[in-house]
Amino acid sequence: MTRTIPLRYRDRMTDEQAAVYAILDEALVCHVSYILDGEPRILPTLHARVGDNLLLHGSSGSRLGLLAREYADGLPVCVAVTLIDGIVLARSAFNHSVNFRSVVVHGKARLVTDRERQQQALDAFINQLVPDRASHSRRANPQELAKTAVLELPLAEAAAKVRQDKSDFDDPEDLDLPHWAGTIPLHVTAGEPKPAPELLGAPVPDHVTGWTPTR
Amino acid sequence: MTRTIPLRYRDRMTDEQAAVYAILDEALVCHVSYILDGEPRILPTLHARVGDNLLLHGSSGSRLGLLAREYADGLPVCVAVTLIDGIVLARSAFNHSVNFRSVVVHGKARLVTDRERQQQALDAFINQLVPDRASHSRRANPQELAKTAVLELPLAEAAAKVRQDKSDFDDPEDLDLPHWAGTIPLHVTAGEPKPAPELLGAPVPDHVTGWTPTR
Repeated sequence: MTRTIPLRYRDRMTDEQAAVYAILDEALVCHVSYILDGEPRILPTLHARVGDNLLLHGSSGSRLGLLAREYADGLPVCVAVTLIDGIVLARSAFNHSVNFRSVVVHGKARLVTDRERQQQALDAFINQLVPDRASHSRRANPQELAKTAVLELPLAEAAAKVRQDKSDFDDPEDLDLPHWAGTIPLHVTAGEPKPAPELLGAPVPDHVTGWTPTR
Repeated sequence: MTRTIPLRYRDRMTDEQAAVYAILDEALVCHVSYILDGEPRILPTLHARVGDNLLLHGSSGSRLGLLAREYADGLPVCVAVTLIDGIVLARSAFNHSVNFRSVVVHGKARLVTDRERQQQALDAFINQLVPDRASHSRRANPQELAKTAVLELPLAEAAAKVRQDKSDFDDPEDLDLPHWAGTIPLHVTAGEPKPAPELLGAPVPDHVTGWTPTR
């Protein structure tokens, strides 16, 4: 697991499964790093965790979708999700930071070709966005599935890195400086749901009004 | 600029500078994709845009910081920032999506070695988190600067991709399905600032109480 061990701030790191899975489950998007023609690439996309695998949403016509087809035993990727919980202000510029929870996963992502497993993956992507949403929508038809690329990445090599509030914001010699220190907590909040034009005035279902960022 | 042209949804893409810069300026973190020992890597980190360059925050002892030293003419990287503006619910599973604004930058990142430019970069990182914050903190000393790695990436090859609300959430044949469709808008909001223990009860400065996610 050496790829998941950072050179610095190792105290912020954990490969405890529960911590890794909770962060993956809360994040709405991930970033996928891969190599194309010897160059680094990055793609923000949707994901979902199903058991001990991370599913990545793509399009069969996208660069990542096309590239994954060429790797029967899986395309090497590195995936990150990052949740920002606050801005940390110190008296010293150097000790400014953010509170965050992030996960990095290394591994080989394989294209899911089985249609039923593709359907289950689409359900998982939608439920990742809004719990219980898949049962409140029409499932994909064969044409839609053909346009969708699902990549499956085992969570065997995954680690979380977490920075939370600490009691010391500054080095002792800076405590008397005339600057404010502390945290600005940040949250993701949902606004009033905006219905499609045809549904103006229609009741908004509970799974929509009850949306919260935490899972 | 072919690396910045996606194969799909080209209508969502723009390389208009104002759009690219506004997204970079609003984002609190970025993800950096790079190659180490032939494998894709990813790092979430702080960034700041200064003129036509993107500055990336690192530590001189981190993998990225150490690697950048080996590339005098710049380490090939691909950087993404992604802002999530809402969850798009359609009657069909397939048409679910998120509203987002993202930027991807390709290029070679060079280590900034000049001490004064490092200082300016640290100011920029802090002001990216909280506008005007750098002037309310102690600047880094030489030891702190030595621990910091600043990478500079020209914004010559950068593109934004934006998905916003549209009036049609579904294909016409799905409009009569008994499912709700619409958007759950998402926002980043700041909670009550939490002072360092020594500052409990002290006044909180305007640049902290007035924090908003938009720039």
